Amino acid sequence: MDGQDDQELFDRMTRELYSAVIADALDSAGARTQILRHDIRPLYPEAIVVGRAFTVLSVDVYTIPEEPYKMELEAVDRLKPGDVLVATTNGSTRSSLWGELLSTAARARGARGAVIDGLTRDTLGIIRMRFPVFVRGIASYDSKGRSDVIAYGVPIQCGDVLVNPGDIIFGDHDGLVVIPQAIEREVIEAALEKARGENTVKQALENGMLATDAFAKYGIL
Amino acid sequence: MDGQDDQELFDRMTRELYSAVIADALDSAGARTQILRHDIRPLYPEAIVVGRAFTVLSVDVYTIPEEPYKMELEAVDRLKPGDVLVATTNGSTRSSLWGELLSTAARARGARGAVIDGLTRDTLGIIRMRFPVFVRGIASYDSKGRSDVIAYGVPIQCGDVLVNPGDIIFGDHDGLVVIPQAIEREVIEAALEKARGENTVKQALENGMLATDAFAKYGIL
Amino acid sequence: MDGQDDQELFDRMTRELYSAVIADALDSAGARTQILRHDIRPLYPEAIVVGRAFTVLSVDVYTIPEEPYKMELEAVDRLKPGDVLVATTNGSTRSSLWGELLSTAARARGARGAVIDGLTRDTLGIIRMRFPVFVRGIASYDSKGRSDVIAYGVPIQCGDVLVNPGDIIFGDHDGLVVIPQAIEREVIEAALEKARGENTVKQALENGMLATDAFAKYGIL
Amino acid sequence: MDGQDDQELFDRMTRELYSAVIADALDSAGARTQILRHDIRPLYPEAIVVGRAFTVLSVDVYTIPEEPYKMELEAVDRLKPGDVLVATTNGSTRSSLWGELLSTAARARGARGAVIDGLTRDTLGIIRMRFPVFVRGIASYDSKGRSDVIAYGVPIQCGDVLVNPGDIIFGDHDGLVVIPQAIEREVIEAALEKARGENTVKQALENGMLATDAFAKYGIL
Amino acid sequence: MDGQDDQELFDRMTRELYSAVIADALDSAGARTQILRHDIRPLYPEAIVVGRAFTVLSVDVYTIPEEPYKMELEAVDRLKPGDVLVATTNGSTRSSLWGELLSTAARARGARGAVIDGLTRDTLGIIRMRFPVFVRGIASYDSKGRSDVIAYGVPIQCGDVLVNPGDIIFGDHDGLVVIPQAIEREVIEAALEKARGENTVKQALENGMLATDAFAKYGIL
Amino acid sequence: MDGQDDQELFDRMTRELYSAVIADALDSAGARTQILRHDIRPLYPEAIVVGRAFTVLSVDVYTIPEEPYKMELEAVDRLKPGDVLVATTNGSTRSSLWGELLSTAARARGARGAVIDGLTRDTLGIIRMRFPVFVRGIASYDSKGRSDVIAYGVPIQCGDVLVNPGDIIFGDHDGLVVIPQAIEREVIEAALEKARGENTVKQALENGMLATDAFAKYGIL
Repeated sequence: MDGQDDQELFDRMTRELYSAVIADALDSAGARTQILRHDIRPLYPEAIVVGRAFTVLSVDVYTIPEEPYKMELEAVDRLKPGDVLVATTNGSTRSSLWGELLSTAARARGARGAVIDGLTRDTLGIIRMRFPVFVRGIASYDSKGRSDVIAYGVPIQCGDVLVNPGDIIFGDHDGLVVIPQAIEREVIEAALEKARGENTVKQALENGMLATDAFAKYGIL
Repeated sequence: MDGQDDQELFDRMTRELYSAVIADALDSAGARTQILRHDIRPLYPEAIVVGRAFTVLSVDVYTIPEEPYKMELEAVDRLKPGDVLVATTNGSTRSSLWGELLSTAARARGARGAVIDGLTRDTLGIIRMRFPVFVRGIASYDSKGRSDVIAYGVPIQCGDVLVNPGDIIFGDHDGLVVIPQAIEREVIEAALEKARGENTVKQALENGMLATDAFAKYGIL
Repeated sequence: MDGQDDQELFDRMTRELYSAVIADALDSAGARTQILRHDIRPLYPEAIVVGRAFTVLSVDVYTIPEEPYKMELEAVDRLKPGDVLVATTNGSTRSSLWGELLSTAARARGARGAVIDGLTRDTLGIIRMRFPVFVRGIASYDSKGRSDVIAYGVPIQCGDVLVNPGDIIFGDHDGLVVIPQAIEREVIEAALEKARGENTVKQALENGMLATDAFAKYGIL
Repeated sequence: MDGQDDQELFDRMTRELYSAVIADALDSAGARTQILRHDIRPLYPEAIVVGRAFTVLSVDVYTIPEEPYKMELEAVDRLKPGDVLVATTNGSTRSSLWGELLSTAARARGARGAVIDGLTRDTLGIIRMRFPVFVRGIASYDSKGRSDVIAYGVPIQCGDVLVNPGDIIFGDHDGLVVIPQAIEREVIEAALEKARGENTVKQALENGMLATDAFAKYGIL
Repeated sequence: MDGQDDQELFDRMTRELYSAVIADALDSAGARTQILRHDIRPLYPEAIVVGRAFTVLSVDVYTIPEEPYKMELEAVDRLKPGDVLVATTNGSTRSSLWGELLSTAARARGARGAVIDGLTRDTLGIIRMRFPVFVRGIASYDSKGRSDVIAYGVPIQCGDVLVNPGDIIFGDHDGLVVIPQAIEREVIEAALEKARGENTVKQALENGMLATDAFAKYGIL
Repeated sequence: MDGQDDQELFDRMTRELYSAVIADALDSAGARTQILRHDIRPLYPEAIVVGRAFTVLSVDVYTIPEEPYKMELEAVDRLKPGDVLVATTNGSTRSSLWGELLSTAARARGARGAVIDGLTRDTLGIIRMRFPVFVRGIASYDSKGRSDVIAYGVPIQCGDVLVNPGDIIFGDHDGLVVIPQAIEREVIEAALEKARGENTVKQALENGMLATDAFAKYGIL
């Protein structure tokens, strides 16, 4: 798919899908380890992120580098429309990798959000921007002299899941799932179909159908 | 007490009580280990749950059972008005035991909420329903092939507290307490009385009375 | 600075500063370990606390003391305008040190908030009061027979940071920072200056300037 | 029982019992929460401790007390023959409560060992002394200015189990159990009897009897 | 391979291989997630276990089952020569799944060891038997009324690694690796070859060759 | 001090000192945060390490680097007599940084040991070599494609303590302490003196002197 198609796809996924139904579609496709660790949470309840992963690898350091922030700034400047910055710090709690200025810069490049297996700061500002950022925690510490980006555009593990550049990542209040590129069409179509079925079941249950009967009839839970 | 009395009692407890004052009443009754581990939290701040525990025991599995969800659906279908589904997964983070469809089915049976020592999904939907669900965390993973209900209506530990079927469970933004059936009348009455006293003390403190003097006078903190 | 100056200073800090920019100013001053552990969080997102630390040391006990709450009540009664009660329980999860009545008493003495490396209860009441309380967690357990204040007005560690009585503590949605008295003037001035610069950079980034260029030009991230 | 009887009893328990069989006897007596958390371990594999608990309560502090070590030394000096010093620091990892000199002093008073829910140091020296000390971990930090004993001879929790002064504590390579005084005779007799039965079963299994048959025949596992 | 071949193979692996070199061979074969979590440790330093996994699934329960130990005893009775019992309790610390009598019964059936993602007891007895048991921890608690085996001979996760019945498991002081049946021949041969090479490198390094040069020459580290 | 002096000093420290007495001397010198986190343990009980820190910084990676092990091998090849390799991986449990071949190479360069805030493998081989290695844990995973050394000879944190190249590190069964270069003479002399005093106190206690009296007389605990 080219960039234009991607944007339309991501908009549709935002409207019609949610992480749980994508998780089920991934399960059905045999991809059963595609959900990020559950302690990576959105900064605000309505945050929905979907886009192609632009990966970033940050590590703990103990001295201020010659050119602080160098590769992190480079990474942000290379984001393209439809991208989601996906960074790992392996959950380091020594500093915050992300903040409001980087969110502003990322959005200006067309990025649709950020996922950080680590900490962030400037959280109220980011929430006011409605820029969907998912993080493991919040802290005021700047990263200078505490962590440093050493690579981007490489395979990483984020929330214990392997993320390859270009994989689709989707996140909402239930968490984050990664759709490998090779099966993205199959998974998204299965998810769209299951999403339609769930409404039918919900209505049947509201009307008093037993859960056992509903599952027997619709095969959906 | 029969079912009708229960509903009136639970409605009154919802209006007049809160978990902290019940905790104090349990302490006074010598039942000092009746509060669930503090990491089991409501999905939304205003959630209040009160009812009789209908217990569910779920365990981790690694293959898809012959009849997936079988006993979990059975358990939900057996819920009665005034019940609260109380489930333990021993805090397993491998999958979500609960979701919006099960909340819908449980409410249709008359259940007043659910308490899960484990994960849930479909959280925004559950919040929109205003169905009070308390959980240890949130994740998109379906339970099929990851966990399975092996018993219900049996004593369990949930949040490290022994819960017997029929015990009253009460939860709000401060957490969850379990009132054993044998002392429920004594505890609830003591809690109602202490709740009235706290307002008096609060007013005295607002008017500038020293905390030391207020505690000496009212014996309440 | 005397008490009056303090109040004006704290009001200005509340309006113009935030924990991240103070953290950066502390870093620049070489005080790189002044941020409390990131799991001490505000009870509501907009909470901002700033004031001079009035320290409290609470420990776990296993019997009800002869005079329950004695030193805790004393501590609260000695709070002065501009103070923030800063308590450590070393993160004990056995009981809640703080609650709505103590918040009421503290506010009546002029205290500007409370920071507890431990648990609290009565959280909805505290949130309704808009009294800024920062805690490690929430639980209904009363402290009587579970924890006891053994000292106040002494150096403590709270959130792994040494807090001396009289240090300025500042907290918002990004967390809490401690400004040692000896460098408070220098740090606050540097923070005020950096806060002004960040708006300029944000605007430049919104207008499409690359992050690399913005950092090269303004030296701010 | 008087002191002389105690010593004979403890010597016999050392020879004939082990923690697992006492645990089973406690289970049978309905005392199902008498085993200390499993991360409190002996300093050397052959360590066996048995005696009456002399309890010590230590807490974290952040300044050097006027009289360092005062109550800890007092506690050690009051140990009597047959005692086991049982101390809680709630697992604090800030300093070591125990060491070789205190082990020497305790042994000189007739104490049979020490159980510390916290850290110790001088471990090689203690091992060489063959003084049975059970700890949560090892560290070189002195307790001065880091922790302080605030009470002894009071009920405490050690390894999450309530220990009353005078309870019998027994520990070996499998861990530690606490026998409440009220049921000590019953529990010890049941344990002695079960210990004899286990040898019979072991021999039967070595001779090839199926485990199912052995359990059906002897009722022991 | 039939049973006889297996025994010869396992004896040879015990003599010539170690877990690190098998781990490298698995890596080379692209099977990079075959090492059990590192907190599952042997009960004594020289323990070496190798054999085909006989899997057991145990879960936490809160009431004594009608027939305690039933499926656990069945599982032990079905062990065959060359088997290693591999059990998961998901690291439950509520009780010990294993002990000396079960070790005795397992050895009598020809089993070569046991791997428990959980706790054990009777540890000194097991060590004296030189029966290689690997565990996550040690505790005296009996499993009756605390955990129960609900299946055996099914795929499980042990130490976070999927173990299928019949996979070869190998463990020594460095930990445990699982060799999937489909690649066992390839992996074992590669491991045997690498083991021979390491001795050459060690000798070169002892003779003073730089590590950089040794790796350039031999390609082994 | 030059290299020759260092070797004599380190030999004397090995004979006459231990980590606890150095910890006390550091405390007395006001350096109260010089002890590594207590979960970094020696591979064998008698291991004693002392030397000048040669620091190594390793980080998690997710792809095999172009030149695997490059900087790690370089670091080992640059070790000088009297050095101790001190490496941080921030406690990563994804792979083992160290092993028998690197121990062999390090010893051939004259290094006196290794301290790894991370995992190691080949542990029985290292123990047989009697090369004092201190680690956070043990695992078979090779570091290739899992972690990579990105710097050496730079300040790092190991076990939460700042270690500068050239600082003296001392470790034994009680743990590890770091003596900053600026105060090494003062600290070592104070430690040697206190070590002599402790024997006197131990003898007095063995002879029955009360602990309170011994501390009053000798000021040593």
